[in-house]
Amino acid sequence: MEILRQAILEKGRVLPGNVLKVGAFLNNQLDVKLLSSMADEIYNHFNNKGITKILTVEASGIALAVLVAERFGVNAVFAKKSKTANVDGELLTAECYSYTHKVMNNLILGKEFLLPGENVLVVDDFLANGQAVYALKTLVEKAGANFSGVAIAIEKGFQGAGDKIRGEGIDLYSLAIIDSMSDSQIVFR
Amino acid sequence: MEILRQAILEKGRVLPGNVLKVGAFLNNQLDVKLLSSMADEIYNHFNNKGITKILTVEASGIALAVLVAERFGVNAVFAKKSKTANVDGELLTAECYSYTHKVMNNLILGKEFLLPGENVLVVDDFLANGQAVYALKTLVEKAGANFSGVAIAIEKGFQGAGDKIRGEGIDLYSLAIIDSMSDSQIVFR
Repeated sequence: MEILRQAILEKGRVLPGNVLKVGAFLNNQLDVKLLSSMADEIYNHFNNKGITKILTVEASGIALAVLVAERFGVNAVFAKKSKTANVDGELLTAECYSYTHKVMNNLILGKEFLLPGENVLVVDDFLANGQAVYALKTLVEKAGANFSGVAIAIEKGFQGAGDKIRGEGIDLYSLAIIDSMSDSQIVFR
Repeated sequence: MEILRQAILEKGRVLPGNVLKVGAFLNNQLDVKLLSSMADEIYNHFNNKGITKILTVEASGIALAVLVAERFGVNAVFAKKSKTANVDGELLTAECYSYTHKVMNNLILGKEFLLPGENVLVVDDFLANGQAVYALKTLVEKAGANFSGVAIAIEKGFQGAGDKIRGEGIDLYSLAIIDSMSDSQIVFR
């Protein structure tokens, strides 16, 4: 998606360790006009799939997920990263290692919010090693729902998880795929 | 706001300790149609204030903040609750005690995302003791921006912070105010 690639080049910053900072528009400040265009693009790709629920993980996936859900006219739901005082009832859980925060999270979701037979589209800001996507897939399967596809803003293609996921026959749609960012030079697929 | 009060009565649950669970529509599952109507209402209240930025705090404020920002045609930004690997640069900080999680958080925000002279509308899902609102107000003041008002989905009126904030001349607009929820009976103002 050209306007996203332009935003990455103009406002993103590459830090050591293949870290791409996009806090200026995607996951700290939220450029809502850009995010709305991204949500339109995701809707156009998946609009024939009978999507009934958008699933993401807190916190940085929520903004895009809500705008996508608005377009589909369905509810969004986000998995939380730890059990807190305001989560109770029967829970779905899946382990998920975060390379960003260097910690094993337990993704949790109230079972009542993901029902058997629902067609679930997973939305997230980044795809790197695929940990979050596979953990969310586990939640969908535990719920007895259908894993209808994955929409990602920025895929770090050089980490390989995206190609692995596509190889499994999953409908993965990434709006921008970065194949290399060595020496701070971003190369898109 | 009548449809929000109805959702609270129909889908909310009162737990011991004055905890109101609204995960079914506000802060775990996101009822995007309801949230969109709430965003319209907030836009109508503040649309003559020259708002240039929506400020919230992760994670549960993000959904409403993004929909409000979409209506104003401005960017949203969310404060994070701890320093993580993907936050760097010059930061604004403010301490904020969370009664939900029983922990002192340090709210942080990249200084580049809140500029001097901006007109900032704070948006959050709950107002109880006012800790988050005052911490976000501190961030706005440290940025040299204007604290233009506060929009809240659900105010726990019986905790008093809302009336205190109004008494300070702040334009606080709560879509639903609960004056009592003892014995699991919710009484709105």
